[in-house]
Amino acid sequence: MSSPNANARLEMFSDGVFAIAITILILEMKLPPVESIHSNADIWNYLIKLWPSFFALTLTFMIILISWMGHHNILAGLDKTSPQFQIANGFFLFTVIFLPFPTALMAEYLDSPFAQPAVFLYCLSGTFHNIGWNALHKYIAVPVPLTKSSTNLELLKRVRRGSQFGFFVSISIAIIAWWFPYIAIVLSFLIWLFWLYLTVDVKDVEAH
Amino acid sequence: MSSPNANARLEMFSDGVFAIAITILILEMKLPPVESIHSNADIWNYLIKLWPSFFALTLTFMIILISWMGHHNILAGLDKTSPQFQIANGFFLFTVIFLPFPTALMAEYLDSPFAQPAVFLYCLSGTFHNIGWNALHKYIAVPVPLTKSSTNLELLKRVRRGSQFGFFVSISIAIIAWWFPYIAIVLSFLIWLFWLYLTVDVKDVEAH
Amino acid sequence: MSSPNANARLEMFSDGVFAIAITILILEMKLPPVESIHSNADIWNYLIKLWPSFFALTLTFMIILISWMGHHNILAGLDKTSPQFQIANGFFLFTVIFLPFPTALMAEYLDSPFAQPAVFLYCLSGTFHNIGWNALHKYIAVPVPLTKSSTNLELLKRVRRGSQFGFFVSISIAIIAWWFPYIAIVLSFLIWLFWLYLTVDVKDVEAH
Amino acid sequence: MSSPNANARLEMFSDGVFAIAITILILEMKLPPVESIHSNADIWNYLIKLWPSFFALTLTFMIILISWMGHHNILAGLDKTSPQFQIANGFFLFTVIFLPFPTALMAEYLDSPFAQPAVFLYCLSGTFHNIGWNALHKYIAVPVPLTKSSTNLELLKRVRRGSQFGFFVSISIAIIAWWFPYIAIVLSFLIWLFWLYLTVDVKDVEAH
Repeated sequence: MSSPNANARLEMFSDGVFAIAITILILEMKLPPVESIHSNADIWNYLIKLWPSFFALTLTFMIILISWMGHHNILAGLDKTSPQFQIANGFFLFTVIFLPFPTALMAEYLDSPFAQPAVFLYCLSGTFHNIGWNALHKYIAVPVPLTKSSTNLELLKRVRRGSQFGFFVSISIAIIAWWFPYIAIVLSFLIWLFWLYLTVDVKDVEAH
Repeated sequence: MSSPNANARLEMFSDGVFAIAITILILEMKLPPVESIHSNADIWNYLIKLWPSFFALTLTFMIILISWMGHHNILAGLDKTSPQFQIANGFFLFTVIFLPFPTALMAEYLDSPFAQPAVFLYCLSGTFHNIGWNALHKYIAVPVPLTKSSTNLELLKRVRRGSQFGFFVSISIAIIAWWFPYIAIVLSFLIWLFWLYLTVDVKDVEAH
Repeated sequence: MSSPNANARLEMFSDGVFAIAITILILEMKLPPVESIHSNADIWNYLIKLWPSFFALTLTFMIILISWMGHHNILAGLDKTSPQFQIANGFFLFTVIFLPFPTALMAEYLDSPFAQPAVFLYCLSGTFHNIGWNALHKYIAVPVPLTKSSTNLELLKRVRRGSQFGFFVSISIAIIAWWFPYIAIVLSFLIWLFWLYLTVDVKDVEAH
Repeated sequence: MSSPNANARLEMFSDGVFAIAITILILEMKLPPVESIHSNADIWNYLIKLWPSFFALTLTFMIILISWMGHHNILAGLDKTSPQFQIANGFFLFTVIFLPFPTALMAEYLDSPFAQPAVFLYCLSGTFHNIGWNALHKYIAVPVPLTKSSTNLELLKRVRRGSQFGFFVSISIAIIAWWFPYIAIVLSFLIWLFWLYLTVDVKDVEAH
């Protein structure tokens, strides 16, 4: 199958999954229980204590958005599909839809004495998602290359190396999270900002 | 990248986010707890006391719908994309997916003595969403203009000015909400009806 | 604006809303509370008592599916759009996303002594959805006709009359529900089966 | 109606339903109740005991993904539609959106003395989904064949036979589940891996 839109339905399905995963994050922001509210100040206090939820929402939103942008860029450079690629894409999407769970766990326990398991799982989910990326990159190249003849292969290789490098970065952050969860989560935030910069930088996988 | 559908996947993704955000609003309408229902009249009373939920649902549905129509109109006038615009669109979508939370909070507390924080946060979220709009408008124009050669720039500029003006309006309503939450929420409703009228009026950003 | 896909993004957005509304119905099927389960038989009993949930899920699924098919058919006959039509479509979608709430309420109370308010509200929501249909039909014709030159206007008029007739049918069912909720819900089910037959029958609004 | 995209909107709607059903599976992974957590070890224990949820999530994700791939393959071989096919597709989607409920039930009770009803219902839902597949296949052929002239009919027939055979397989697994739930669930997992292999193998329904 070789056509400009061999992956059209795969894109549509993936976009749907990305869009739903990113939107249901808000469902994890819970209302204050009515019986605990006796004054306006109680609501304000509740909202202030909700900062870990807002932080977790923002970080995971950013991760899924960047991931969607990267997926968009890569697929723009392909004009063929393969069963292996479709399964790799399925695994990749699995690592996306899993993210709301560690996000909700981190939101609940980040501001508690029990932040370590929550942050560790969150960082590990980042590594899991990275493995999804590396699987995507692998099955773009094997068993048959799916790229357009006009695709900038040099750039694509650079993005792939970035994903491979990202594996070691995210594993390292997970290890740091075991002992220093707060340092790990700040590092994670900074790394994703840097990744956002890289994603913007490789906008040109698609040929002009 | 310049093609009639440079933003095709961005539109698809954004439409997905809009569609999900607008539909999950209904998940906030909660059933009466079974143990509190001892007669038909109990259910009727519960349903009547649900009016703030219905009001909040209607207002936020209207806001997201108008926002989607506006997004639709603006993108119809573009034939180019840029990384900056994609990130601005991501931020804009963040302000959309956030809306169900203040909506649910307002639904819960509008008809209680503690309406003030809920309404204030709701109005502030409107301002937050307005900032998303202004970011979108900015990155249509810089660093490179993304508009079609046939786009009615005069009209687009008028829409942009409307968004900038909207910032001051929504900030003012938020300030009013601090002291007079009920007046603010009525004003907010009226402003959005007016905004609906404006959106309809600028249907012609796309050239014929 | 007159082009084969003047309503392309409106279709995409509407499809998204339909797809989400129809899928989140399953979220209303609740698990048995763990503390109430002491044997396999307890789970079986719980599942058997879940029949109103399954019935409500099936009926509302059928309603949303038929509604989507009808929407699909009507839009296939249009090649123009108007702000009025877009707003009417928004209102129509509002009547769709509202359906999960009365569905959940009916699921909870159908098999209880308090079925009457739940069934009445469910039937009334059917009337509300019918009003959405009639609004769609109206703004296809005014202020400007949006139909393709090749559209079978005679057939479209027949569908519109069906919707107008449907208003009286659904109002009648709601009135019956006030005194005889179980008769009303059986009637409602039969009417929708008949409507499914009609929808299939008017597959030819789009010209060949 | 005969055009390359006679089923374009049906595909879009189905993709939406698939994407939502596969993504909301994660909503069933519940957080540990705050009041039950007194140490990091409590969270770790909770996460370890969550393995049935993770297993159920993975299996149902795989089922829905394979189902989507199969749907994709079949529709790529069609260029016509019929009301009967649209209704069959609606029924098929009903069997998809139902899956999150037995998945959540199995996740809750797989690691309990009451696994039998949960696993039995899960396997039965697989049979239900298989019936949806067979309905789809039937209405591709009758009342009018919807296939492209270029479609590999031999291959399509092989896929249809696979679905018919699958009915007996899934019924058998359900029967086994009545007495040996754990054997049945392992068999189910293996069958789906094999089905994944078959789906990949029939990638060529669409002609080149």
